[in-house]
Amino acid sequence: MYSIGIDVGGTTTKIGLVDEDGKIFKQDIIDTSTYVDINDFVDAIEQTLRPWMQERSHLACKGIGIGAPNGNFYTGSIEFAPNLPWKGVVPLADLFETKFKLPVIITNDANAAAIGEMRYGAAKGMNNFIIITLGTGVGSGFVANGGIIYGHDGAAGELGHVIVQPNGRLCGCGRNGCLETYTSATGIVKTALEVIQKYPSSILNQKLPLSSKEIFEAAKEGDQAALEIFETTGKILGECLANTVAITSPEAIILFGGLARAGHFIFEPTERHMNTNVLRIWNNKIKLLPSMLPENDVAILGAAALVV
Amino acid sequence: MYSIGIDVGGTTTKIGLVDEDGKIFKQDIIDTSTYVDINDFVDAIEQTLRPWMQERSHLACKGIGIGAPNGNFYTGSIEFAPNLPWKGVVPLADLFETKFKLPVIITNDANAAAIGEMRYGAAKGMNNFIIITLGTGVGSGFVANGGIIYGHDGAAGELGHVIVQPNGRLCGCGRNGCLETYTSATGIVKTALEVIQKYPSSILNQKLPLSSKEIFEAAKEGDQAALEIFETTGKILGECLANTVAITSPEAIILFGGLARAGHFIFEPTERHMNTNVLRIWNNKIKLLPSMLPENDVAILGAAALVV
Repeated sequence: MYSIGIDVGGTTTKIGLVDEDGKIFKQDIIDTSTYVDINDFVDAIEQTLRPWMQERSHLACKGIGIGAPNGNFYTGSIEFAPNLPWKGVVPLADLFETKFKLPVIITNDANAAAIGEMRYGAAKGMNNFIIITLGTGVGSGFVANGGIIYGHDGAAGELGHVIVQPNGRLCGCGRNGCLETYTSATGIVKTALEVIQKYPSSILNQKLPLSSKEIFEAAKEGDQAALEIFETTGKILGECLANTVAITSPEAIILFGGLARAGHFIFEPTERHMNTNVLRIWNNKIKLLPSMLPENDVAILGAAALVV
Repeated sequence: MYSIGIDVGGTTTKIGLVDEDGKIFKQDIIDTSTYVDINDFVDAIEQTLRPWMQERSHLACKGIGIGAPNGNFYTGSIEFAPNLPWKGVVPLADLFETKFKLPVIITNDANAAAIGEMRYGAAKGMNNFIIITLGTGVGSGFVANGGIIYGHDGAAGELGHVIVQPNGRLCGCGRNGCLETYTSATGIVKTALEVIQKYPSSILNQKLPLSSKEIFEAAKEGDQAALEIFETTGKILGECLANTVAITSPEAIILFGGLARAGHFIFEPTERHMNTNVLRIWNNKIKLLPSMLPENDVAILGAAALVV
């Protein structure tokens, strides 16, 4: 018995076969952006999968799980994803079901990561936790009572679009001050451009245009501007997490994605500001954890676990 | 078959017998604050219940459900409730179980109200909604996937303690700027005292000390200060609800309690500001509803439904 996990990303799509113990025994990557027509994209994935499945024709395949930005669990569609080549509503589950005659379940990428962490990673055994992806944007998956909170329409978990700064930075969603304009890998670069103006001797002034990785590298060298950039970012994230804890009271919050790779530079200020701002009953009680799974595997594992 | 619902409040405690269809066929009220010793409180409730139960000795009693401030579903205790006569941790479920030899389930008052609305009221048939009680404080109950979100420790749903104004008004919790310092029945009075300074001719200046009811009465008469007070309060609540929707994507939000009785004076600005601030996919899609149950009955019905 095995299942198929597909992690659709704006740049690449990862495909894997996963056994019952969460071992990925076949995997490959294709370029998402090459496939302007969704049918070509599905065909390309089929070409990858068919030989693998034929090799294992003696085993039952449980189905196909897909994690995708703006993937909707209820409708099986990708809906108005700004960073994917296909516009409008894409009935991806239907397309795969027609081709493979297997059960297909879709959810958004952060929810798939949450399921991956719950089944195999840092959230093993937890029934109430949050996973937050700090990548190009900020995504999130909320688990309560052992299940993903999908909301009434399948679109819950948009922590990246909580407004943390009224009239703040313009967000891709058209509003201002969303969390993801501050605490994503792109948001921290915007903060950096503001902060380095106060630090003419910061090494970051010589690294323009900046990336979140360069801010991390500068912080490791003790660059004062870089440290202040992480402090500012951790404050905004920590304050938002304190408010979020008041709603779902998670056992742990898992930080994941590009910015989380900065380790204690982002974890320490985030945790400190979360604890300063949280209702006292939760003071120092909510764990802030890194993912326990290889970053490339989480979404494949989570997607595959959707059909288990 | 019937069940017992108990709604423990700071001032009064309501006790009811509820049949399978949600009809309260016996009910009474006792003064909570009279009973400094928790054992006397439990005895008083027993004295009320015993004759009712004897009358119905031919029927099975499913158990006792209790809604109480700071009531913890997991532990069966009331924990550090600031507005009750009993300090520290009160093992209320144990005390009732010992006396009645029946299953006893406790939750906080807002969660009990959520269950009441889900089973018999405005949230009938909904699997994802929020109830917000705008009383002396602000309480909330979150339902996702058809179940209450209790969180890892039973304390989830503290929307009243989301910080909406950094360094804002001092809250009873010891922090500053919590939602309940602005949008509770007491919070709106504080806003009123600020606003009426700009309106020397407002009738509210002659009603000091104010109550939320008087602000409502003044608004009905078209008092400009009163209308601005509701506008300010609705803005703060609506902005907070917009952020909350991004997390759990509820089908509806039910407003309940003293301040909700102001009807469209509070619903209209709250809904408008929620829709102005929410992520576009939810624009004009989240229902803002009043409770559909008599205010005195909701918590008894919800508490009783805990054991059904």
